[in-house]
Amino acid sequence: MTKKKLRLLPLGGLGEIGLNCLVLEWEDNLVLLDCGIQFPDASHPGVELFVPDLSYVMDRLDHLKGVVVTHGHDDHIGAIPYLARRTALDVYCTKFPRGLIAHKLAEHEHAKKVNFIEIEPGKSFQVGPFGFTAVAVQHSIIEALAFGIQTPVGLVVHSGDFKHDPTPFEGQTIGLEAFEAFGKKGVHLLFADSTNAEKAGHTVSEEDIAKSFSQLFKEQDTRIIIALFASNIRRIGNLLRLAHEQGKKVVLLGRSMHSYTRLAHEQSSLNIPEDTLILPENADKYPDDKVVILATGSQAEPQSALLRVAHGTHRDLQLRPGDRVMLSSRFIPGNERAISGMISQLARQGAEILYESVHQIHVSGHGFQEELRLLHQACKPKYFVPVHGEYRHMAKHADLASESDISKENIFIIEDGQVLETDGVQLARAEKVNLKKVPIVQGWVMEQRPIVFTQRSGMAKAGIVYSVLMRDAHTRELVGRPVVNSYGVLFKDGEEEDTVKLEAVDLVESVYEEECMDPASDHEAAEIIRLQLRRYYRDHACYKPIVITQVFDV
Amino acid sequence: MTKKKLRLLPLGGLGEIGLNCLVLEWEDNLVLLDCGIQFPDASHPGVELFVPDLSYVMDRLDHLKGVVVTHGHDDHIGAIPYLARRTALDVYCTKFPRGLIAHKLAEHEHAKKVNFIEIEPGKSFQVGPFGFTAVAVQHSIIEALAFGIQTPVGLVVHSGDFKHDPTPFEGQTIGLEAFEAFGKKGVHLLFADSTNAEKAGHTVSEEDIAKSFSQLFKEQDTRIIIALFASNIRRIGNLLRLAHEQGKKVVLLGRSMHSYTRLAHEQSSLNIPEDTLILPENADKYPDDKVVILATGSQAEPQSALLRVAHGTHRDLQLRPGDRVMLSSRFIPGNERAISGMISQLARQGAEILYESVHQIHVSGHGFQEELRLLHQACKPKYFVPVHGEYRHMAKHADLASESDISKENIFIIEDGQVLETDGVQLARAEKVNLKKVPIVQGWVMEQRPIVFTQRSGMAKAGIVYSVLMRDAHTRELVGRPVVNSYGVLFKDGEEEDTVKLEAVDLVESVYEEECMDPASDHEAAEIIRLQLRRYYRDHACYKPIVITQVFDV
Repeated sequence: MTKKKLRLLPLGGLGEIGLNCLVLEWEDNLVLLDCGIQFPDASHPGVELFVPDLSYVMDRLDHLKGVVVTHGHDDHIGAIPYLARRTALDVYCTKFPRGLIAHKLAEHEHAKKVNFIEIEPGKSFQVGPFGFTAVAVQHSIIEALAFGIQTPVGLVVHSGDFKHDPTPFEGQTIGLEAFEAFGKKGVHLLFADSTNAEKAGHTVSEEDIAKSFSQLFKEQDTRIIIALFASNIRRIGNLLRLAHEQGKKVVLLGRSMHSYTRLAHEQSSLNIPEDTLILPENADKYPDDKVVILATGSQAEPQSALLRVAHGTHRDLQLRPGDRVMLSSRFIPGNERAISGMISQLARQGAEILYESVHQIHVSGHGFQEELRLLHQACKPKYFVPVHGEYRHMAKHADLASESDISKENIFIIEDGQVLETDGVQLARAEKVNLKKVPIVQGWVMEQRPIVFTQRSGMAKAGIVYSVLMRDAHTRELVGRPVVNSYGVLFKDGEEEDTVKLEAVDLVESVYEEECMDPASDHEAAEIIRLQLRRYYRDHACYKPIVITQVFDV
Repeated sequence: MTKKKLRLLPLGGLGEIGLNCLVLEWEDNLVLLDCGIQFPDASHPGVELFVPDLSYVMDRLDHLKGVVVTHGHDDHIGAIPYLARRTALDVYCTKFPRGLIAHKLAEHEHAKKVNFIEIEPGKSFQVGPFGFTAVAVQHSIIEALAFGIQTPVGLVVHSGDFKHDPTPFEGQTIGLEAFEAFGKKGVHLLFADSTNAEKAGHTVSEEDIAKSFSQLFKEQDTRIIIALFASNIRRIGNLLRLAHEQGKKVVLLGRSMHSYTRLAHEQSSLNIPEDTLILPENADKYPDDKVVILATGSQAEPQSALLRVAHGTHRDLQLRPGDRVMLSSRFIPGNERAISGMISQLARQGAEILYESVHQIHVSGHGFQEELRLLHQACKPKYFVPVHGEYRHMAKHADLASESDISKENIFIIEDGQVLETDGVQLARAEKVNLKKVPIVQGWVMEQRPIVFTQRSGMAKAGIVYSVLMRDAHTRELVGRPVVNSYGVLFKDGEEEDTVKLEAVDLVESVYEEECMDPASDHEAAEIIRLQLRRYYRDHACYKPIVITQVFDV
């Protein structure tokens, strides 16, 4: 009899930023830890976001016991509505992510029933065969959790998105005691956040950021516009408090800035001091040195508040020379050019721009090396698997872990799709599941057609040429002349598109008459013509356009 | 009588990174200062590079007295061969850029005669009405120059790409004396490099970078691969010397690494110590701690040496676990995702990767704020125009300059196309020239067809649908059925491409028969059908594909 094994399958987030989703499997029980999205780069034009390839879960829907959520960032919860399209669902989360998920579900047309089970830090709950204990951690969103997971073969700890900020927040200090307690019980396997594993030292405290802002507020002599993620409720709370203390008024700008703060306020997680928030249209009633504007758009996202302000197209806010814009965020890789363009656009209007590299107005939500070391040492796991990062980050995290007491052969650097199995004694690689992340286009789930992106990138690089021929079904004589047309094609110096096209029509006609009259089926004829036409366009265009040919019998 | 005026027209580099090209104009005399290229971002698929819009020069070719070159980087010399396609040309430059330009010209088929006039730092030369004095400056390439330009209306100074590195190089210290001398004579107008105007402090010396490498070489216990720009001859020289001193062997990897070092060596600008360079195939004859590889590819450029090494496709070098890869370069905005992917790919093969943010193995070629201040104070110009940067950098540089003795109203932040005029007393904005930078695709100059990029981006986002109809020229009856085809189109959930297509054929047929039989010309009919077909595909596809329709009389 083979021993029963706990199976662990990352569907996203290992070897890439975003798309966090981990399958825990024991016999006929599946539990998902997070189910997040990822934003695409330029290689997928038209794609709004990706969701994880959930086929493994879809094939075992009866086994799915629920989704357990670490925190409310989109790369951890954003794909839940897409999963909910396919099945009713139990979701275990705290109240803030619950509100965020409910909001998303309300915007989705086809979601089935989602049953929320509210969890709390410090409390335990059972999901199928797994006993979860929720542990509060610090991150750039409130109510972030790590989990101790008592499995039938031992204790698994998952850090969630983790940093160690020992400064008290709302009267509470979050230490490492819970992890130390797990360590004492014996941790079989630790999964931990690798995002900043390359960064030496320790993050500064969120309270130090607040001090910087307090100083900047004191020196304020013009309007201040602060761009930050709407989900960073702790920082928003600090900024509101500071503004209130110094007798300033705060304007909120951007859809998510309103919805996130409203939710946090309704849930009593955000204290909005009285007489502090004002409407944008009333801002001009106050002196410039009393006006602070909190805006979305730190990543220069299309349609975001700050980008519209930069381009002078925001309904409620026109920049004035001297306005100070503070980017309280990091520049996410891939967004740099857009952010830089936005900064220039703000500067053209006379704004002064401050950012992290010069002023201490942002700190990451992910721990640096010293914090990761603290986590390793507290948990003392037998096995270690770095998660949440590109390969470079996970590799660095593995190096770091090997400096603690974890032995090198017990550290597994794995990527999405790699199944791990453990019987409680030994952890080992099992099969690799082939995953294809799923693009979402205009809200539609595109599971079937990755070929389309190859087609699109071919057309984007070189354009397209198509040719249509009609022939008499009986005589095989051409009816009319062949049609040839091109779109998005660049021609070499001295080549005129129309002349090239006319010659191409002649070419297709003669190729047809010389090579396709006799035995060629419509498909064979189209292929013969395609090859000749492709060669012809390669000679006249700057690059090789896509060529499509069709022959029809009439 | 109106006073004669000196006219200054930036064709590139002001408000953007790259494409540096400045027109100096006095009566019937034009001189170009630099003529560089720019690399495109993802919004121009298929484009290799941009050259400046040279129409202003082309319309006045008889007036062109020559191109004066500050240094040999592609963003300063890369477009010279494209200019040389249109006219014979006098190019004033030192020997290293001369070699680089000659190399480029040899690869260009259609270049006309280029006559090189070799210039030297410290020496003066006349180009048309302008008396140039070349001044040696520090930059990340050898033989970088600034210029004092004696014009009929006063002295203009251009910093070129500038930093202040007072450490002696090849026995020579480059100070600010020449700028101070200009300052004493009286500088009417200063143009200066804004690239790092946002960075506080002073760049570290290139010799400090050499010290870091010396230490890393001493600690070496595995192979070291250093990725850097092949044009950074000073750093390459330092690395060769350090390797030689420590008894190591050096392998050069990458086409430009070979061509740049060969040129610098032939010109006696690079000392290659004896018995230091080895061929890649001989590297394995030496112990790992004696092998240093210098490679191109620090920006993860396609086909570059390091990228191929990362993917295991380099003919001459296979990575081994433990190899240390040092990225001795900055991550140029827009390349971060590619570089990060390359780093992960290197890490997957077990390499350890070091980079600037963690180890002091790179310094910029552009001065930080303290160096720019030194330049302002040395020159004491009446007027100041920041150049070489995005708007954000130029705006910061303007702020910085206003802290010196330059009065605020004498600082002009201008962007490409804005003409400045001066009579020697007053500098003022004149007309704005409309510029369209010119894409180069597969070596072909694409001046005429910017529309193609709009077409391509439309297809990339949503795909294309085309329809072709043949009708009897007399009866207007359709010959055969309409053809409808799509490419690169994503359909909504539950929609089958083939079914959509069949229905579209029916639709087109009925639209034709109902609305186009009577008075509609072929073009009118095609437009009626296009609108209906577009509406139909909007309903069935995820997004709005490009729709093209054609009706032919047969």
